[in-house]
Amino acid sequence: MPPVADPDERPFAARAVSAPVLKVRSHGIAERNDHVAVEEPLEIRIAGVSLAVTMRTPGDDEELVAGFLFSERVIGTADDVDVIARYRAADRDAEAGNVMNVLLRGDLRTARERLRRNFVAASSCGLCGKVTIDAIRAELPPVTSDLRLPAGLFARLAESMAEAQETFEKTGGLHAAGLFDANGQRLVLREDIGRHNAVDKVIGHMILARQTPLDRAVLMVSGRASYEIMQKALVARIPVVAAVSAPSSMAVEMARAADMTLVGFVRGSGFNVYAGARRVSHGIAELV
Amino acid sequence: MPPVADPDERPFAARAVSAPVLKVRSHGIAERNDHVAVEEPLEIRIAGVSLAVTMRTPGDDEELVAGFLFSERVIGTADDVDVIARYRAADRDAEAGNVMNVLLRGDLRTARERLRRNFVAASSCGLCGKVTIDAIRAELPPVTSDLRLPAGLFARLAESMAEAQETFEKTGGLHAAGLFDANGQRLVLREDIGRHNAVDKVIGHMILARQTPLDRAVLMVSGRASYEIMQKALVARIPVVAAVSAPSSMAVEMARAADMTLVGFVRGSGFNVYAGARRVSHGIAELV
Repeated sequence: MPPVADPDERPFAARAVSAPVLKVRSHGIAERNDHVAVEEPLEIRIAGVSLAVTMRTPGDDEELVAGFLFSERVIGTADDVDVIARYRAADRDAEAGNVMNVLLRGDLRTARERLRRNFVAASSCGLCGKVTIDAIRAELPPVTSDLRLPAGLFARLAESMAEAQETFEKTGGLHAAGLFDANGQRLVLREDIGRHNAVDKVIGHMILARQTPLDRAVLMVSGRASYEIMQKALVARIPVVAAVSAPSSMAVEMARAADMTLVGFVRGSGFNVYAGARRVSHGIAELV
Repeated sequence: MPPVADPDERPFAARAVSAPVLKVRSHGIAERNDHVAVEEPLEIRIAGVSLAVTMRTPGDDEELVAGFLFSERVIGTADDVDVIARYRAADRDAEAGNVMNVLLRGDLRTARERLRRNFVAASSCGLCGKVTIDAIRAELPPVTSDLRLPAGLFARLAESMAEAQETFEKTGGLHAAGLFDANGQRLVLREDIGRHNAVDKVIGHMILARQTPLDRAVLMVSGRASYEIMQKALVARIPVVAAVSAPSSMAVEMARAADMTLVGFVRGSGFNVYAGARRVSHGIAELV
């Protein structure tokens, strides 16, 4: 039997399923059941027309859709969305849970035009990193948040992430993204097999809860910081992004261009600051 | 200055660049130069028409394009491609290195039809994992390779990967994919900021070298095994995929449906077999 969650048994909260595994070790071999992170495609439709398919971990799909549309600048607030609804066609109810339909508020033609414009912009940005970042700078002003964070905060964020990452413990297969306030209080944490999806879910959660802009918040990701993660944070006006692992060159370049703070390699009490050091602690920049 | 490789200095082999980093540790703070993995967009055009943009690490771009087109089943062999050439427009030579143009062999209309058909298939597969895998099974027969590998081989593959992963050592920011023969001999290894790109480069290398099908080879990836990695392996007829980290539920399901062998969590001499255990060693399946 394939190791897929039964959508009727555990509708959309099943982030891990049990699967038989042959464990080969130096001292012997055994068949055991083990947890595997769930991966399923999600199709996003606007007024019935397919827009995108993403491989994701089921759960918090409304947040994922809201966060995705916000990151792509199709919507700006929860008010721009009339409906986010899951398809449940009568003839295939066991399978219909992986398609979400969105109705945008207002005139359909306006919505279509907004979509077309944004997607054209997104897909024609392939010339080079410089051109891509210049295009984004032309549309989005730099982050202006005067947030300042004590250096000791980042280790606490990492601990808080690890505590909350229940599925990762079981499967080793999920990325996590968490949003924190300036005191290190966790606002929301989401896990997903796709790192961009985890960030979309976190931001989508805040949008649906009408708690944007996020210019006093810190985004932390369990893995690496790429250009796309920085772009999502910039659209949401998040001034500080911290990654447990390495940033890419374009993430660093993007952070500098948009005056964002980028922290990487958060390990124990140590971390690296790649951009925007003035937001870290009360005088670290002066100490250097 | 942004930490981007100068395309004239180190044309397309620069996988890591130096960037100033503020290192915050419990015992002190210092500014140091550190290596950061390069991320840049690559736009793929077919006869001048934009097909896709991917965020990738520069280097081996021809292989990336060939592997991508092969995985998407736009081409079957190197003979299906007339030209893979880098754009170098006179007015923007410093930036033109991130666009590759492909001319497919034969009638342009036929090529366009092939493209359209494959991309429609790829983008309409969002209903659910079951439907997606059924669609692939209908088009691609299961792997039939009778390859058998000793259990001790996987630790050697992991060692060989780690030895060759030079950029990862410096940046902690790159994924690797390696292709090995049944004796553990490394055929090709590629690093990229995107895990799918690393696999595309490996497979593209073999296609351009006219060494497909790969039904006696093992694909190893440095991270997790997702559905898309298994799909790429299946198209290339690779019977065994090994991952240093966890597989997803759909990777397991796909491996079972296509009779592929899927190994995960290769750590020291131990590993887990999620599907196709008959290809591992000479009797492990019987021991259980």
